[in-house]
Amino acid sequence: MAGAVPVWSVDPRTGDQRERVADEATAADVDAAVRAARDALPSLADRSARAAFLRTAAAHLEADGERIVATADAESALGVPRLTGELARTTGQLRAFADEVEDGDHLGVIIDHADPSRTPPQPDLRRYKLPLGVVAVYAASNFPLAFSVPGGDTASALAAGCPVVVKAHPDHPATSQLCAAALRAAAAEAGLARDVVSVVHGFDAGVELVRHPLVSAAGFTGSVRGGRALFDAASSRPEPIPFHGELGSLNPVVLTPAAVAERAEQLGQGLGGSVTLGTGQFCVKPGLVLVPEGPDGDRTLAALAATLRDTAPGHLLDARMRDAFLDGVRARAALAKVQAPVEAGAGEEETGRTVRPGVLTLAARDLDEEHALLWEECFGPVTVAVRYGDEADIEAVLARVTGSLTATVHLGTEEAAREQGTAAALLARLTALAGRVVVNGWPTGVAVAPAQHHGGPYPATTSTSTSVGATAIERWLRPVAYQDTPEALLPPELRDGNPLGLPRRVDGIREV
Amino acid sequence: MAGAVPVWSVDPRTGDQRERVADEATAADVDAAVRAARDALPSLADRSARAAFLRTAAAHLEADGERIVATADAESALGVPRLTGELARTTGQLRAFADEVEDGDHLGVIIDHADPSRTPPQPDLRRYKLPLGVVAVYAASNFPLAFSVPGGDTASALAAGCPVVVKAHPDHPATSQLCAAALRAAAAEAGLARDVVSVVHGFDAGVELVRHPLVSAAGFTGSVRGGRALFDAASSRPEPIPFHGELGSLNPVVLTPAAVAERAEQLGQGLGGSVTLGTGQFCVKPGLVLVPEGPDGDRTLAALAATLRDTAPGHLLDARMRDAFLDGVRARAALAKVQAPVEAGAGEEETGRTVRPGVLTLAARDLDEEHALLWEECFGPVTVAVRYGDEADIEAVLARVTGSLTATVHLGTEEAAREQGTAAALLARLTALAGRVVVNGWPTGVAVAPAQHHGGPYPATTSTSTSVGATAIERWLRPVAYQDTPEALLPPELRDGNPLGLPRRVDGIREV
Repeated sequence: MAGAVPVWSVDPRTGDQRERVADEATAADVDAAVRAARDALPSLADRSARAAFLRTAAAHLEADGERIVATADAESALGVPRLTGELARTTGQLRAFADEVEDGDHLGVIIDHADPSRTPPQPDLRRYKLPLGVVAVYAASNFPLAFSVPGGDTASALAAGCPVVVKAHPDHPATSQLCAAALRAAAAEAGLARDVVSVVHGFDAGVELVRHPLVSAAGFTGSVRGGRALFDAASSRPEPIPFHGELGSLNPVVLTPAAVAERAEQLGQGLGGSVTLGTGQFCVKPGLVLVPEGPDGDRTLAALAATLRDTAPGHLLDARMRDAFLDGVRARAALAKVQAPVEAGAGEEETGRTVRPGVLTLAARDLDEEHALLWEECFGPVTVAVRYGDEADIEAVLARVTGSLTATVHLGTEEAAREQGTAAALLARLTALAGRVVVNGWPTGVAVAPAQHHGGPYPATTSTSTSVGATAIERWLRPVAYQDTPEALLPPELRDGNPLGLPRRVDGIREV
Repeated sequence: MAGAVPVWSVDPRTGDQRERVADEATAADVDAAVRAARDALPSLADRSARAAFLRTAAAHLEADGERIVATADAESALGVPRLTGELARTTGQLRAFADEVEDGDHLGVIIDHADPSRTPPQPDLRRYKLPLGVVAVYAASNFPLAFSVPGGDTASALAAGCPVVVKAHPDHPATSQLCAAALRAAAAEAGLARDVVSVVHGFDAGVELVRHPLVSAAGFTGSVRGGRALFDAASSRPEPIPFHGELGSLNPVVLTPAAVAERAEQLGQGLGGSVTLGTGQFCVKPGLVLVPEGPDGDRTLAALAATLRDTAPGHLLDARMRDAFLDGVRARAALAKVQAPVEAGAGEEETGRTVRPGVLTLAARDLDEEHALLWEECFGPVTVAVRYGDEADIEAVLARVTGSLTATVHLGTEEAAREQGTAAALLARLTALAGRVVVNGWPTGVAVAPAQHHGGPYPATTSTSTSVGATAIERWLRPVAYQDTPEALLPPELRDGNPLGLPRRVDGIREV
């Protein structure tokens, strides 16, 4: 029998092992974690306690914030300023979901009183939503906090009343342990079972988790390959479960001739900043940019090139990712008629582990079947600029783009103000490709707000849901309707007189 | 090359072929239908036109109602009174979805204005929902109208703005053609493309349809076996699509000792009526009933037996279904310790094609692994009554029940009025099993009402959605968020001032 498999925290700046954090979870460990989570479900039933817990969790993460950020930086090389911001995003998100829990809109209460005058007579029907059960969360590499143990999937599942078992990402196991400890301590302090959140480590544990009969749904942020494998496992279970995966996204950007005529340098610089933010390790990094042919487009690309050259080399999250980035850039640059005005590649020799950002270019008229690779996400600080001559070129390029999280357009001042015309047509075209359409901005930066939608057609996501924003909570709920149920036996959410003051729709009339 | 495969309308009362209705659709036919539907998508964009179309469709179905009902009866043997009611349900449903389209709640509008004071500054975000694209609908055998061509899946998809290609059920091809003609004529009258609805016939066509790259989602009502095969096909596509399938349901019923003490005869008669309604061909037929041991339970079963004996033999939808019913009853009756106080089976010899209803009984204490078949749906007029002694018996029986559309409990007057106690615990237990919980009633009869939920844990449905009620529309939509988009380029649904008077959530405040 094999012994325990150790889980190491690794410093991506040096490649050194920092500390042995835990052991990989065995099948028995996963089973124990899921059963403990299932047993903890009733402790999440009370909405007030749930909201208090989410706020206490935010406070605990802040209280241990300095250590959490330092650990995350040591494991991820993402830098203290970025991680400090990410911690604020994470705690803000927990508090925002606490507000949603209290608001109660997610319960989707609809009440139709009996109507004996109908043919056939209509019974009394009252519907709301219940937590699905234990949720498996697969943490992302690139957000050790906001899309990992205390991240949006976990926060929204807990807000829905579902206990969570997180499969930690191997890029930040120590951070995962610290965050789990904070959440579990917060649960205890709020009077809930600690096992409303737990963490398991290891690839095999992740596969066990999605197949476990007591797991009712899963959330995932990661690669197309890994996400699709888990989606397939979720779908081929004897009892399939919802799998809300965010897999991969090209995030196309269109710069119109009017936009580059007005502000070529600003656009080139802005694009460079968006491509290199966090060393290009964002799901919403602009991976494909349509730039008009001609001098304004040239100036835009020159400004982009200058920005990229001025950007210091950065560390990727791990050695495997760095290899994939360098291989990916090399394979793309080797394609016929592709140029590299700024070559992405390995950083300075003395540091040995950084990467330099770059840009690849291609003329739309040169585009052929062999360029398919350019339409696949390349994780890291590189983008592909396609030069276009006319609208047919734009369509030829966009027709190859698969579902994306975002699509962006930069417009000239006049075209942005006209209801009909090229800009409107372009916006409609981009809407078909993505879950978020950005005008005159950059897709990096995903605001945590009720109206946010962070999802898109496959492979951006495997479902029509979002992993950021208020409606993320909907993923973990299922409706149930009570028919002709005596008042005494109804849950208070569904009783006459609206004792909990919930937003409801009663006999067709909305009560706020 | 094989020639066209004819599609025949068959009279289940005689087994005779009535008429040759159409040919089975080839792969090329399916492709043409889907492409035509895709091209028709823009014609559904206007919500007013959509609502008018749904109402016109209802009117066209009513105008041709006599012929539609007569044809459906000739193909299904469901009887003119039932089919007349089903037509009213169907047209009522189309009109209800027209109301929903106009109400606009399904658009899920959320607006968050920019907040530059935040860290980081929050952009302007405006979210609503768009139609997914072409929807494939798989018609049910047992509802030639309400769950077929003009049924709830079609109506809700059209309401969402999605064109529909229906795979007709082989039990009612002529009815399907008539209904499709009515819907297509209504589309033309309302100024929409006729191809917003079309129909294909044939098993292979159904498989082609779910695999077609331009199909964006599917709705299905039918068997576990067929539904699971299509779900698997939908999930294993290069780009998986949502598959909302309603597959199979046992619909457990619990009669408490207090309930049978109060009204044994009434419960036995009511149960008999529910089991035999429509010759037992409802997805929500009570397939398993928990009856207390002792004289009150005996009286209940005696009343049930008398009702079943008094019920005239009826026709099942087709010969294959009749064979499956007779085989299913035989296999269950042959299990150890199972008794058949009223034997279900073939009807009178002179008619040759009917079936008689029946009941099988088993004592909970005799229950063992070999009885697993009793927990599978047996489509047709039969139910299984399990006699129980105590709450542990109830739990032993319910623990074997898989996800159901409904779960029902009959309570005594006093226990129905008490907030805590056995009834509350029983209700909580049943809620875990089903999407609709019925108290002191019968699950047959699925009211079309906003609060309805017709779905449940797998295998009742393959998703958390409903196929009946206002929220059925949600299945065919995907959200999109616009970031910092100029007013002129925003869809009117998302503009400031709420020009369309939609229910919206703006900066956290609900506008009705």
